Amino acid sequence: MRYAPGSLYLIDQRRLPHEETWLELGDAASTARAIRDMVVRGAPAIAITAAYGLALAARRGEDRAEARRLLLASRPTAVNLRWALERLDPVADADLEEAARDLHAQDVATNRAMGDRGARILPDGGIYTHCNTGALATGGWGTALGIVRSKAVWGRTIHVYVGETRPYLQGARLTTWECVKEGIACTLVTDSMAAALFATGRVGSVVVGCDRVAANGDVANKIGTLALAILARHHGLPFYVAMPLSTLDLRCPDGDHIPIEERAPSEVLGFRQERTAPAGVDAWNPAFDVTPAELVTGWITEEGAWTPG
Amino acid sequence: MRYAPGSLYLIDQRRLPHEETWLELGDAASTARAIRDMVVRGAPAIAITAAYGLALAARRGEDRAEARRLLLASRPTAVNLRWALERLDPVADADLEEAARDLHAQDVATNRAMGDRGARILPDGGIYTHCNTGALATGGWGTALGIVRSKAVWGRTIHVYVGETRPYLQGARLTTWECVKEGIACTLVTDSMAAALFATGRVGSVVVGCDRVAANGDVANKIGTLALAILARHHGLPFYVAMPLSTLDLRCPDGDHIPIEERAPSEVLGFRQERTAPAGVDAWNPAFDVTPAELVTGWITEEGAWTPG
Repeated sequence: MRYAPGSLYLIDQRRLPHEETWLELGDAASTARAIRDMVVRGAPAIAITAAYGLALAARRGEDRAEARRLLLASRPTAVNLRWALERLDPVADADLEEAARDLHAQDVATNRAMGDRGARILPDGGIYTHCNTGALATGGWGTALGIVRSKAVWGRTIHVYVGETRPYLQGARLTTWECVKEGIACTLVTDSMAAALFATGRVGSVVVGCDRVAANGDVANKIGTLALAILARHHGLPFYVAMPLSTLDLRCPDGDHIPIEERAPSEVLGFRQERTAPAGVDAWNPAFDVTPAELVTGWITEEGAWTPG
Repeated sequence: MRYAPGSLYLIDQRRLPHEETWLELGDAASTARAIRDMVVRGAPAIAITAAYGLALAARRGEDRAEARRLLLASRPTAVNLRWALERLDPVADADLEEAARDLHAQDVATNRAMGDRGARILPDGGIYTHCNTGALATGGWGTALGIVRSKAVWGRTIHVYVGETRPYLQGARLTTWECVKEGIACTLVTDSMAAALFATGRVGSVVVGCDRVAANGDVANKIGTLALAILARHHGLPFYVAMPLSTLDLRCPDGDHIPIEERAPSEVLGFRQERTAPAGVDAWNPAFDVTPAELVTGWITEEGAWTPG
């Protein structure tokens, strides 16, 4: 995303990877709509977008309380969104633009610090990742994919294996697109192929992002993460979680206390407009799963990496 | 599939689950085309179809050698296809129809025997399965799904969880369709959800089919099977393989000696007609994986079940 005084520019992620279309947003209502309609997704990216939306409202002299309400309601379950708006509450109208830019810069700086730390930890060679945790999901650089990006920038020989991440295909549509843009060698697989791939010896480590980490280290992340952690353990591969400290929830004792959003069955019963399953079939569609801390080799943060214990 | 003298009737599986269209075939060429074009798939189903195709040719007075050549070439890698045609070689033209019917009846009888044995072994409750191993893939009844069907016919309380089976979606398209037809309660999940589902305790066993089993018990089956075996072991669930004795290859010492077909990347790079990944991305598309014998709880055959050792 890019901001210039009075204008927020976002890539329309719904059109990726086939078209790179930038939308220009000028007020809170259109920004809220862009979040609601999935032009932008990824918790950190949404939070920064909302902060810019509030700054746009202030610049145009819109009603600030109404703008805040609209933005907060755009994705009611995103915790980072509320956090960002609350952080801007004490900021004067005239300073909102600068405060939003600070939030954005801070997110990128966090990601780069995490990326550089992680790049020293992950071995060169094959790296398996899941979902989209790159620049598109954050203010820039990315979390798990930021680590990959740091290794690539340092000229390390790496090859990224990307799980397509059914049902929403963030891996197939977004992570591969970022890799192509950055010239990072990557191979797409279906989620069902990870075990066979690990058995070939082509992968040396697995790295994923996280949506929330409990105090005991249990990790809630995109559905499919738990399977990767178990398969990595079975094949003797290290399993790393890229964890900005903001996602560590010390009030949450363990994974059993993390609520898991269940989404509409339609995402599983088909893909986009195309229905694949017959009428009369039910589907289960949890958006996230919980990986127990004992399956995690290391939690990589912007301030350092933690190991079990 | 159904046979009446001079006519073979096949469901066009390419149109499932949205349309149930029966094709009527009257000669070897159209039968070979139906196999090649995936009207019918599943190794046992293909073999029986080819046998009927040869019988149709004989009834119409077609050149038998040419008919055999056409049918054999329809899917060059299917071992069962060659086996069925070779079994018919010594049969006189006048007896081909009866011999094909015998092959068909024998397959169904094998499946029912395996189903009844398996139904006594698998616990009631939640059963997870993969790909399509039902009536559509065989002469009738099915292998792994045949066990489920036997349990249902016996009135046992079961609930089938079906993995969608990317990339070709046999689970989402075909297995769910069979379950709906039979009134068997089923829930569709993406392959990435199996681990989270096992963690909920809703599943009590996993049962899959097989394409080839080596002498040491290693199992080649649809890609994604290995992951399920590892995840089942991690969660303490029994993992069963429905194995008609015809798929046991005693000349093959272990899984390392089973060649794995790699299919076109396009299946992984898209979802049916829709391309999902950007240009410039490579994909890996093994059609099968190998599950080591030590992860298998039992091999269920038409003559009884084997346990490790």
